[in-house]
Amino acid sequence: MKILVGFCSLSGNTKKMAEAIARGVKDEGVTCDLKEVSQITVDELLNYEGLIFGSPTYYGLMTADLKRLFDDSVKHHGKLTGKIGGAFTSSGMMGGGGETTILSIFEALLIHGMIIAGDAKMQHYGPLAVGAPDNEAEKNCMKYGKKIAALTKKIYGT
Amino acid sequence: MKILVGFCSLSGNTKKMAEAIARGVKDEGVTCDLKEVSQITVDELLNYEGLIFGSPTYYGLMTADLKRLFDDSVKHHGKLTGKIGGAFTSSGMMGGGGETTILSIFEALLIHGMIIAGDAKMQHYGPLAVGAPDNEAEKNCMKYGKKIAALTKKIYGT
Amino acid sequence: MKILVGFCSLSGNTKKMAEAIARGVKDEGVTCDLKEVSQITVDELLNYEGLIFGSPTYYGLMTADLKRLFDDSVKHHGKLTGKIGGAFTSSGMMGGGGETTILSIFEALLIHGMIIAGDAKMQHYGPLAVGAPDNEAEKNCMKYGKKIAALTKKIYGT
Amino acid sequence: MKILVGFCSLSGNTKKMAEAIARGVKDEGVTCDLKEVSQITVDELLNYEGLIFGSPTYYGLMTADLKRLFDDSVKHHGKLTGKIGGAFTSSGMMGGGGETTILSIFEALLIHGMIIAGDAKMQHYGPLAVGAPDNEAEKNCMKYGKKIAALTKKIYGT
Repeated sequence: MKILVGFCSLSGNTKKMAEAIARGVKDEGVTCDLKEVSQITVDELLNYEGLIFGSPTYYGLMTADLKRLFDDSVKHHGKLTGKIGGAFTSSGMMGGGGETTILSIFEALLIHGMIIAGDAKMQHYGPLAVGAPDNEAEKNCMKYGKKIAALTKKIYGT
Repeated sequence: MKILVGFCSLSGNTKKMAEAIARGVKDEGVTCDLKEVSQITVDELLNYEGLIFGSPTYYGLMTADLKRLFDDSVKHHGKLTGKIGGAFTSSGMMGGGGETTILSIFEALLIHGMIIAGDAKMQHYGPLAVGAPDNEAEKNCMKYGKKIAALTKKIYGT
Repeated sequence: MKILVGFCSLSGNTKKMAEAIARGVKDEGVTCDLKEVSQITVDELLNYEGLIFGSPTYYGLMTADLKRLFDDSVKHHGKLTGKIGGAFTSSGMMGGGGETTILSIFEALLIHGMIIAGDAKMQHYGPLAVGAPDNEAEKNCMKYGKKIAALTKKIYGT
Repeated sequence: MKILVGFCSLSGNTKKMAEAIARGVKDEGVTCDLKEVSQITVDELLNYEGLIFGSPTYYGLMTADLKRLFDDSVKHHGKLTGKIGGAFTSSGMMGGGGETTILSIFEALLIHGMIIAGDAKMQHYGPLAVGAPDNEAEKNCMKYGKKIAALTKKIYGT
């Protein structure tokens, strides 16, 4: 069982979140690959049971770079069905489009037939940090990684 | 294991969709209760492993009646975490707000910490019928019910 | 020319935002009525050139009370076309569904054929405060009121 | 006064919609440029009072190509404030993500501080065609072009 944490990051903020999420996945005992979006091929998406994507908030949506990966993933449309998905973002300010960025990733994951989960306690749609993630934000990212990993184990069997 | 299909319906269209979804759930061997939203108490939400809600498309969102149930469900905030959710709608026209109605239900389910799934083949976010559901729409509703039931079995064990 | 600022508020936070927005509207020289949603009839919606609605963030969407007003407004469907709209929310936490709450109001306004505007500098979709609005949040609300009033004057002539 | 209709199109469907919208803009007496997204520079966005963008529905969102234009437009962040925006899409099926594609464009336009409008009669968020636009869809596109042009004239003066 393997989970991919794919991210875009210019400032390094989204990368830090990605690293914390990957730590959470591993803490749960699941193998995790951490990759910049530019280094992910659509073919390798098939190798993972869980796919978590992060992007800085650019005009309230994922970046064009991450969107490119989804556009190209049409090659395997239908084959990601049933996989577990997740999303996170680093935003410039509160109310700056971070929630809609996470939802934009969710929309792409749902159209792939994937499974996603919200959170009743932490940021509800997925980890959202304003600027550089502080300790609290990193802790939430780790918890999120653990949670997605636990769900993946439940669905794909240990 | 039990799944609730809760719905609002004025014209009867959403009700027909709800009935087809309930048939699909039962076909998958899972007990299913079918109820109008006005007859659902927030307490009984706790009794189900899966919660599927349907609403006609009213101004691009679920109806106030269904929203009331979610508003009141704050009493049990956190206790629905990990349950499986689903959503469907009957809309007046194509491009009439049906997709955003389903997403509005998804947003409430995610904030409850619930798990949702998209579909790579049928209407991607959830069953969406324009006007009275035809045969094709009813078949899609049944498939959707089966799918959510199968996911519920996977996550909650058979 | 008249603008209505309609709001729901349990804790008083959304009310404070509404008051600041109303001050901004008046600063721009436009008459403004400030009303709790329970005291707004759908008939009087016709009397305003601008309609700004605020709601606390309840499960990532406007409250059922505000949604009820929109559901009932179907009585005048088509007659609000061309009016100017706005939306704001008070949320429990950052990433708590505040953006999607504003968008839920926008969706209803758009389906009424109304005109809305974003903001390149402040919270992009509309005023969003976490908890009690601080000075900064109140200032943003005032600016928002001024902006919507200025747009209403532009479109409806002074 | 000038309006740009920018589009991506692989199959030609979105292009046909763009052409009909451009006809509507011109019918309203406003100059209109029709361009493929790849031929639009971010600098020229400043030259238009109205910006209408169309994209096929790719995973429930605008294409990466159109998103790239928005990402690059950050160079002029703040300078598009007050311009009039519009959005349209060609989708593979009803419930296929067309509404969310239009909303994804709206989110980017709102974050630029732009002004958008919905429609109480036609597809509410913006023109949405499934597959090749038929006569009805082309007529709706023309009406939409006229509407956005009329709003632009109102706001920018004739």
